[in-house]
Amino acid sequence: MSILLIGSLDAEEYAEWRQHILAHLPAGEELVLAGEPHDPAAVEVALVANPPHGTLARYPRLGFVQSLWAGVDRMLSDPELPRKLPIARLVDPALTQAMMECALAGVLFLHRQLPAYARQQAGAEWRQLSQPLASQRRVGVLGLGELGSAAARGLSTVGFKVSGWSRSSREVAGVSCLSGAEGFDRLVSEAEILVNLLPLTPQTANVLDAKLFARLPRGAGVVNLARGGHLVEEDLLAALESGQVSHAVLDVFRQEPLPASHAFWQHPRITVLPHVAAYSEPSTASRIALENVARFRSGQPLTALVDPGRGY
Amino acid sequence: MSILLIGSLDAEEYAEWRQHILAHLPAGEELVLAGEPHDPAAVEVALVANPPHGTLARYPRLGFVQSLWAGVDRMLSDPELPRKLPIARLVDPALTQAMMECALAGVLFLHRQLPAYARQQAGAEWRQLSQPLASQRRVGVLGLGELGSAAARGLSTVGFKVSGWSRSSREVAGVSCLSGAEGFDRLVSEAEILVNLLPLTPQTANVLDAKLFARLPRGAGVVNLARGGHLVEEDLLAALESGQVSHAVLDVFRQEPLPASHAFWQHPRITVLPHVAAYSEPSTASRIALENVARFRSGQPLTALVDPGRGY
Repeated sequence: MSILLIGSLDAEEYAEWRQHILAHLPAGEELVLAGEPHDPAAVEVALVANPPHGTLARYPRLGFVQSLWAGVDRMLSDPELPRKLPIARLVDPALTQAMMECALAGVLFLHRQLPAYARQQAGAEWRQLSQPLASQRRVGVLGLGELGSAAARGLSTVGFKVSGWSRSSREVAGVSCLSGAEGFDRLVSEAEILVNLLPLTPQTANVLDAKLFARLPRGAGVVNLARGGHLVEEDLLAALESGQVSHAVLDVFRQEPLPASHAFWQHPRITVLPHVAAYSEPSTASRIALENVARFRSGQPLTALVDPGRGY
Repeated sequence: MSILLIGSLDAEEYAEWRQHILAHLPAGEELVLAGEPHDPAAVEVALVANPPHGTLARYPRLGFVQSLWAGVDRMLSDPELPRKLPIARLVDPALTQAMMECALAGVLFLHRQLPAYARQQAGAEWRQLSQPLASQRRVGVLGLGELGSAAARGLSTVGFKVSGWSRSSREVAGVSCLSGAEGFDRLVSEAEILVNLLPLTPQTANVLDAKLFARLPRGAGVVNLARGGHLVEEDLLAALESGQVSHAVLDVFRQEPLPASHAFWQHPRITVLPHVAAYSEPSTASRIALENVARFRSGQPLTALVDPGRGY
């Protein structure tokens, strides 16, 4: 019986993941790669990195899918995905820390008005803007899963007033935790800087829209580190145009790579990052993924299982 | 007997400081302003914000000078400054926190490669750069006074490996503290991002020079939040040109405002901030300054006294 590695990966990425997975593969396990000859009927476990739609359905004895990435939204939107198949997200402390660092970098970039000073610099303009302390600044974090709660904690540690929202109520030290529709409205209406770390589900798609932007305090900053599908692009452009949103830091896009002709690239109030907030690091991710595979093999409870009803 | 307010301030700034000082002025104290008629012989205390050279010498009964700003280097370089006059710096937790936030913003900006991504964005280039975690990144902080040690602690809390250097040895939790010439060389040779928060003294002037840049790891980032006099400008330009330094964030300059014709404004690898890292906030600074004046009046030990021999 074998473990399949399958994803939207190029040859170099396949080789790197294979190397790190082999380094942690227990004796008796066999690794096969999607692009190489193998017997589909022998595959019981799949290690996946955004597997192309329809591919997992070809493995009749597949009993467990472990993602090598944190986000599983594209896999879950596969109409042929076998039902009742246990699927686990990757929960990797290194990835969580990277996301926290990126959230902090994005929020401090906006908090300390670096985009405004860059515009002044282009015109050789020496002008001091009023600067609140972090303790006078409210940051709202949408999503309090592994990544959102780590970002919220980090922001709170630096001194920001932090509110966090999640569908079901949570507790995060130092963070004012909100849930439900009323909590959502309150968080948005108070967020001088809004950080999105929601999972992408049918319920959260297009959440960053004109209605939300209109509810933010005037001149708010937006940091989207989750998925391009959360953002209604034309609504953001309109909110930037009107000054309702002062600047956006975007790491994710509906189409990636972002097409060269896209309006975001040359927009003076948008910072484009090429989906770099938090990578899966093959060395740590392989070890964590294979630990869950070992639990599957020995019948122990699996960690980080996706609830297909929630979509994350 | 009266308290003098004197500084390099415009009318609006004088009015703002006067308002906040009056709000905290104890009964029986009189406040006089440098630009308004007053009896120099009645002045026993001066609250100063970079007083013009020569001015303090005009007050024969001056017994105590309390700065409203953290830096006192310009005042101390006044050749007519009365000797043996007790001078106190401003130690304001709000200013310390602001400096920590600015240091963190500058370091995370470089750590997360935002300048490189801004250059890519200008060319609509989607390219992911390798990204270490903060725990894999060594930040060196020059100066471990109030401001430097707060910045070093903040950087350590976020996860960076932090080394700090001070003339005399210090202990700061989570920070590898170095001192002396050997410690200085070691800090510089390991600092992937270097933050300068030294006081400006004859010993520290021009410390950021070609010799120091050559010793940094190749491609290091530099954040100068202390004084323009620390930096040899042409040496920085040469180090950026050669790639030895990848980017510099500068908040302070030899001449402020930075002249419109200065090469720094249009340099693609320099971020110019118009001396905004940490302002004195008149509301909190006035209270703290007057607390020290009350100690002077009642003969209690003064806090934050400057050692003229050290220059800070």
